[in-house]
Amino acid sequence: MSNKPSIPKGTRDFSPTEMARRNYIFDTIKKVYKRYGFQQIETPAVENLNTLIGTGGNESDTLIFKILNSGDYLAPMNNEDFDKYRIKKTTKIGDKKVLLQSANLNEFTNRISEKALRYDLTVPFARYVVQNQNDITFPFRRFQIQPVWRADRPQKGRYREFYQCDADIIGSDSLLNEVDLIKIIDDVYTELFDKDLPYTISINNRKILFGMCVSVGLKDKFEQIVVIIDKLDKIELDGVAKEFELLGLSEVQINGIKDVLGIRLAFDRQSNLSKDEYIEASIKSLSELKNKSANESTSKGIKELEFVFEKLKALGIKTANIKFDPTLARGLGYYTGTIIEVKIDNFPSICGGGRYDDLTGKFGLKDVSGVGISFGADRIYDVLLDNDLYPKSIEANSTQVFFYYYNEGEEDICLKYLYQLRDANIKAEFYPDIKRNKQYSIAERKGVRYVITVRSEELKKGKLFMRDLENDTQYIDITIDKAIEIIQK
Amino acid sequence: MSNKPSIPKGTRDFSPTEMARRNYIFDTIKKVYKRYGFQQIETPAVENLNTLIGTGGNESDTLIFKILNSGDYLAPMNNEDFDKYRIKKTTKIGDKKVLLQSANLNEFTNRISEKALRYDLTVPFARYVVQNQNDITFPFRRFQIQPVWRADRPQKGRYREFYQCDADIIGSDSLLNEVDLIKIIDDVYTELFDKDLPYTISINNRKILFGMCVSVGLKDKFEQIVVIIDKLDKIELDGVAKEFELLGLSEVQINGIKDVLGIRLAFDRQSNLSKDEYIEASIKSLSELKNKSANESTSKGIKELEFVFEKLKALGIKTANIKFDPTLARGLGYYTGTIIEVKIDNFPSICGGGRYDDLTGKFGLKDVSGVGISFGADRIYDVLLDNDLYPKSIEANSTQVFFYYYNEGEEDICLKYLYQLRDANIKAEFYPDIKRNKQYSIAERKGVRYVITVRSEELKKGKLFMRDLENDTQYIDITIDKAIEIIQK
Repeated sequence: MSNKPSIPKGTRDFSPTEMARRNYIFDTIKKVYKRYGFQQIETPAVENLNTLIGTGGNESDTLIFKILNSGDYLAPMNNEDFDKYRIKKTTKIGDKKVLLQSANLNEFTNRISEKALRYDLTVPFARYVVQNQNDITFPFRRFQIQPVWRADRPQKGRYREFYQCDADIIGSDSLLNEVDLIKIIDDVYTELFDKDLPYTISINNRKILFGMCVSVGLKDKFEQIVVIIDKLDKIELDGVAKEFELLGLSEVQINGIKDVLGIRLAFDRQSNLSKDEYIEASIKSLSELKNKSANESTSKGIKELEFVFEKLKALGIKTANIKFDPTLARGLGYYTGTIIEVKIDNFPSICGGGRYDDLTGKFGLKDVSGVGISFGADRIYDVLLDNDLYPKSIEANSTQVFFYYYNEGEEDICLKYLYQLRDANIKAEFYPDIKRNKQYSIAERKGVRYVITVRSEELKKGKLFMRDLENDTQYIDITIDKAIEIIQK
Repeated sequence: MSNKPSIPKGTRDFSPTEMARRNYIFDTIKKVYKRYGFQQIETPAVENLNTLIGTGGNESDTLIFKILNSGDYLAPMNNEDFDKYRIKKTTKIGDKKVLLQSANLNEFTNRISEKALRYDLTVPFARYVVQNQNDITFPFRRFQIQPVWRADRPQKGRYREFYQCDADIIGSDSLLNEVDLIKIIDDVYTELFDKDLPYTISINNRKILFGMCVSVGLKDKFEQIVVIIDKLDKIELDGVAKEFELLGLSEVQINGIKDVLGIRLAFDRQSNLSKDEYIEASIKSLSELKNKSANESTSKGIKELEFVFEKLKALGIKTANIKFDPTLARGLGYYTGTIIEVKIDNFPSICGGGRYDDLTGKFGLKDVSGVGISFGADRIYDVLLDNDLYPKSIEANSTQVFFYYYNEGEEDICLKYLYQLRDANIKAEFYPDIKRNKQYSIAERKGVRYVITVRSEELKKGKLFMRDLENDTQYIDITIDKAIEIIQK
């Protein structure tokens, strides 16, 4: 093969510059996570298929990249088995026979694949907690920064391999954990956005959504209603009402729901609130909703959110606009309490999370409550780039010094100086096989700040010549120690 | 499912303690790589199958974990196609028909799988270089620390998912690059092993091995001979000679080879050499071999190694025992010059590498020379653990302060103090829902050093009570600022 090489759709290479920026994001998130007592774990990229299947709903199952068993994976099947998968469903369109789908595809897949790539970090974490429950001190605050894989249709900002940065607290019911997670979001974005970029943390509680459905007699239609509410941004309140009608809801029921959703719209109309006003307005909305609702689930949800908002008010927030948003639903099946989503204008969610009461149940450990958030590093990357928010210092994170010499036979002395620089932890390179007149242009292309050159007469005196390309200054006849001092300061 | 959860054979979870140790290894390697001007890149875990297949030899191909195409991957096959794979080869043993293997397995695999997990970082790097050649400034010094996957039989110290830490220089023929890489190995292990653990860097040159075969008229049997030489540690020189006989070598040929291999045995007999004596002895051996050999390839290999050893002698080495080892072969097909391997007693290789003249050729970029090394983080992990070489400080890399209070209603004041600690970048946790008498035991299990408690009378004065569990001391009536000062110093 000498075709032009490529990588699979939806995956990416990261160049040194991109890596420096990505590491800056990861390091910021890590630093804040640690400050809040979170401890890092890692789990394998590859999990048993039965760990992953049936956890995040049917939709998630189709997103899972499955790994072919190794060796002769067809051998365990006899010819009769194999024949079962040969037959395909077909249909007639006009007078043409059209292939619809392979027969028994899932069963066939299960016979040739036992392992798969994880599609999130939450399910592997739940599996980890159950498997290591005897070694874990609860409440357990863990963070995990690793890639996940999804067989999604690739599109702008959506990849098939991307990093998640998760923090979860498991084994504690305290709502102070929710407060901690929101403070973490505030800390991370205050640092990354440098106070320049407004962003909103929307908070809701699944109990409020559920109670709303119960109170209009639609407990059984909870999930369908949530799916419709999720479309609010696209189709607005009238569109949502129309879909409710199609679902068979009465006018009274629709008005009952619209009443709750209206709170979100009240926020949308008030565009210039300060961060303190956002919290005040949220507390006021919650109190109004409380007066309207006699439903037990709603009341519990409201009480939980009131606690969270009151604490945030007392403690103060650095830069986040935090609002109660009763239309926030978040698709994933396992949330049962608080749900959180972070947005900036014209951009998909850059962080999300919530509380789940029984994530580990699937693996045999019941009644352990957890709450967590996940930062989407790839989207944050784009946001920082679009808004020119990367600190200048991280671009220059590579080589600091280029070293070269004039005359044959002086290589060894130069090498000694070179390694002295490195032993002082200065990043330095040396390419004697590259022509002298090319050295400067390479240094410039690489963004190297200092070039040290050595000529015979200087070498005799143990001296060097150094140019600072950034400030266009030069240092004549300096010692290596002096050079180190200048570079390090 | 509520079975006991598990992870696939040959994969591992990493607990917070294990992560802290692993990060210590990665950080040390990264720091040294950067010092030598290497820049980090990352490539996707998932590559196109045709990028990976046929690069590292047939053996590597069977080690590749392949990913099932998503969606209805069988649909593109019609029933006639499918039938081709139904037939299996069988054979008769006695009067029993035994299944040998599935028919056309590779072809079937290619129809249902287009992607695979990378099995090393070198091939993806070669692909990256070719794909991004217009954006790269050569010579390009890149490092890459990522997991790789191999469908190997799992055993002690050998995993199916493990990390490689690679550094390569591509686009420079200079042997100073080899010197740099050996200095890097010396720097990394000097730091990790803290001068306590002796280790050996064995160096050879493929040109010497090749020349040796040519000079005894066995150019065509080069690869088979290398495979036999690789067994020297297991079957000793006599065993090797016997295998050469079986291969059909004459006594003269065998003696010619034994003559070269004997150099390695001379080293093995001298056990108490200092690191300087190792270099001297290597230079002497090279010179002796030069006098024996008139072969062009061998001479070139010797000249290259002499350059490397002379530079190392002039520059000095911190802790490594570096020896010329003419029996070092290293399996992988793509090495053409220097080869390097690092060992400590009774342990498999902990670092290896070498020069390859045409790695990017497969992807259409000819005549680009590269040289690189790869640290095996998982083995280094075990070596440090077995030899108790982890610094104490990294164990305590988690929460520093546990915070709790005595009376209801004082939570808010405590929370303020808690967030003050965190804003000072002190790692602190707070669990008001855990009983007071359990707080200390949790703090101890978690290895938390400080516990801060607050009682009403102290709160009135804005003072705190702090215990240092590590030194069993206590601080009475201190302010939060004083506490921060004590913890930070």
